[in-house]
Amino acid sequence: MTSLASCIFCKIVKGEIPSMKLLETDTIFAFMDIGPIARGHCLVIPKYHAAKLNDLPDDQTKDIIPALKKLAIASGAENYNILQNNGRPAHQVVDHVHFHVIPKYAERGDDEGLVIGWPTLFIPSSSHWG
Amino acid sequence: MTSLASCIFCKIVKGEIPSMKLLETDTIFAFMDIGPIARGHCLVIPKYHAAKLNDLPDDQTKDIIPALKKLAIASGAENYNILQNNGRPAHQVVDHVHFHVIPKYAERGDDEGLVIGWPTLFIPSSSHWG
Repeated sequence: MTSLASCIFCKIVKGEIPSMKLLETDTIFAFMDIGPIARGHCLVIPKYHAAKLNDLPDDQTKDIIPALKKLAIASGAENYNILQNNGRPAHQVVDHVHFHVIPKYAERGDDEGLVIGWPTLFIPSSSHWG
Repeated sequence: MTSLASCIFCKIVKGEIPSMKLLETDTIFAFMDIGPIARGHCLVIPKYHAAKLNDLPDDQTKDIIPALKKLAIASGAENYNILQNNGRPAHQVVDHVHFHVIPKYAERGDDEGLVIGWPTLFIPSSSHWG
């Protein structure tokens, strides 16, 4: 297992920093987000230390989506977003791969849960219709 | 393979609707997003028809993250978001599970790529610090 001594998420996996643990397998660890943007907001992380998704070996990925499914179901939320950010410009704050499970409660609108902006782009040269 | 005759993504998998195909395995299909919000914006979908992630059987998930990695690397983008929406309030438009790979180019700011709003929530009863 690759681990980084200075990484806050590696410390959570090792139990050196407390967390509200939800799930664990040989390759992943899941816990409540400490700065939730919705009730039930939690994280799935690989135990293997990789800063970005492209750094994570394929053999460390198998349990991630099954865990995301379990947590989404456990949250009881009908609607939810799965988000994984890579790099500061893409809102990554902790440099250890983490997948957010963020319930979205329709009645709360954008007061709770992920708020998505979708700046439609006109790219004639890369469009397969143009 | 579970497929739905009326589903636009099932039609793309079957080749009944054209797409700019990027990758295919026995369980997934990847193609360019027709309404990109960034250069290189593409999608990975399971071939199995499931409306939401919690409806997708675990045995249909194995190739998804490896494919997301390949596409992120192929995009050449240093920064990117992986996003998977479930339900209308969570911005899901097509009712077939799809994972977005959305490059984020720092120099373009929020004119291109995913724009994220993060409404920090105060939830004393569910906080493990409180």
